[in-house]
Amino acid sequence: MDDNKKISIAVIKRLPRYYRYLSELLDNGITKVSSKELSDRMHVTASQIRQDLNCFGGFGQQGYGYNVEYLHKEIAAILGIPEPFNVIIIGAGNMGQAIAKYDNFKKRGFVFKGIFDINPNVIGSAINGMTVMHLDQTEEFVKENKVDIAILCIPKENAKEVAKKMASLGIRGLWNFSSTDLHNVEEEYGAVVENVHLTDNLMVLGYRISEKRKGVVI
Amino acid sequence: MDDNKKISIAVIKRLPRYYRYLSELLDNGITKVSSKELSDRMHVTASQIRQDLNCFGGFGQQGYGYNVEYLHKEIAAILGIPEPFNVIIIGAGNMGQAIAKYDNFKKRGFVFKGIFDINPNVIGSAINGMTVMHLDQTEEFVKENKVDIAILCIPKENAKEVAKKMASLGIRGLWNFSSTDLHNVEEEYGAVVENVHLTDNLMVLGYRISEKRKGVVI
Repeated sequence: MDDNKKISIAVIKRLPRYYRYLSELLDNGITKVSSKELSDRMHVTASQIRQDLNCFGGFGQQGYGYNVEYLHKEIAAILGIPEPFNVIIIGAGNMGQAIAKYDNFKKRGFVFKGIFDINPNVIGSAINGMTVMHLDQTEEFVKENKVDIAILCIPKENAKEVAKKMASLGIRGLWNFSSTDLHNVEEEYGAVVENVHLTDNLMVLGYRISEKRKGVVI
Repeated sequence: MDDNKKISIAVIKRLPRYYRYLSELLDNGITKVSSKELSDRMHVTASQIRQDLNCFGGFGQQGYGYNVEYLHKEIAAILGIPEPFNVIIIGAGNMGQAIAKYDNFKKRGFVFKGIFDINPNVIGSAINGMTVMHLDQTEEFVKENKVDIAILCIPKENAKEVAKKMASLGIRGLWNFSSTDLHNVEEEYGAVVENVHLTDNLMVLGYRISEKRKGVVI
């Protein structure tokens, strides 16, 4: 990959999906794939695939197709895999616990190091091999462990303050489930934020069902 | 709203966010808002806001701004709120349980009616007031309860088969957490699908951290 070439965030957002499909091909022992085959599997046009993969030098050979292993490795390198990311979870409620127990993240290079809360009822309990610590212990913990990402599974009222605290401890990425947008955290405190709004997504589904009932195709 | 006017899915996907901000304004007793104020809060350009809201007749008055309550009500109507959606959860593992316990969905009109699994160790246990039933009981349950949405929190190996079954029972919407894309389910079985790929989202965050370390601004 040409390090000087900037890949647009739109392409980047599609890369995990390519990575998923290529992983499946590798698992099935498939070593080459044409843009047409990938297009059929992924339900993306072949020309979109060629355009995306050309962005980082993933040129297929005419009449041969793409080398699956090479593409897989290239995309992994772009996405920072297998560079492992150390992760802590802030909030040991339902969502925090569900994420702590989801072992799939580890396969993608995200290693859970600790989980924190302020609720005395959960502090000290064990979740997937981790003992829940008090939020006040994050400072010491982050100093001793190289933590890259904090997953925020906390009420929206506390989200900004906790985000600021995490960034001040040197944590560079925040994955925010707190049901509020964390504006300006990146500009002001230098931590990258990805917001997950599950309710928004469910509302879009609700809308599409209503429209379908009315006979509108969307 | 003009029923004959088709709103693009891009605008629809932004509506839950407008709804969230307008709900907050209402909670704070704010009755009018200018596109400029909304722009500052939401970090969207004022012209984008005017364009979006004009799509469904949400015209602001010059020098007055938008009527918050009216806009909130209009967006709710478009999104099918407060039309309640009856929801069942398939899979009482970590994610299924976390979602079952997340009471915020109810506030947006999504009512959990039942949760199902095939694991004898969880069947019969209670989660947020619901008793986990066997997957085989869905048919009878859906007949007796008007179920609109099934949330799939199951391994990807079973996702397609379960999706097909749910659609055959007349369930019109599938919210898919099973870490595989459910292609063709809509075309073949007539159920609307929204896929949630949490790992993809986390990988994008990982990429953005790596780029930031290299000094690339994205």
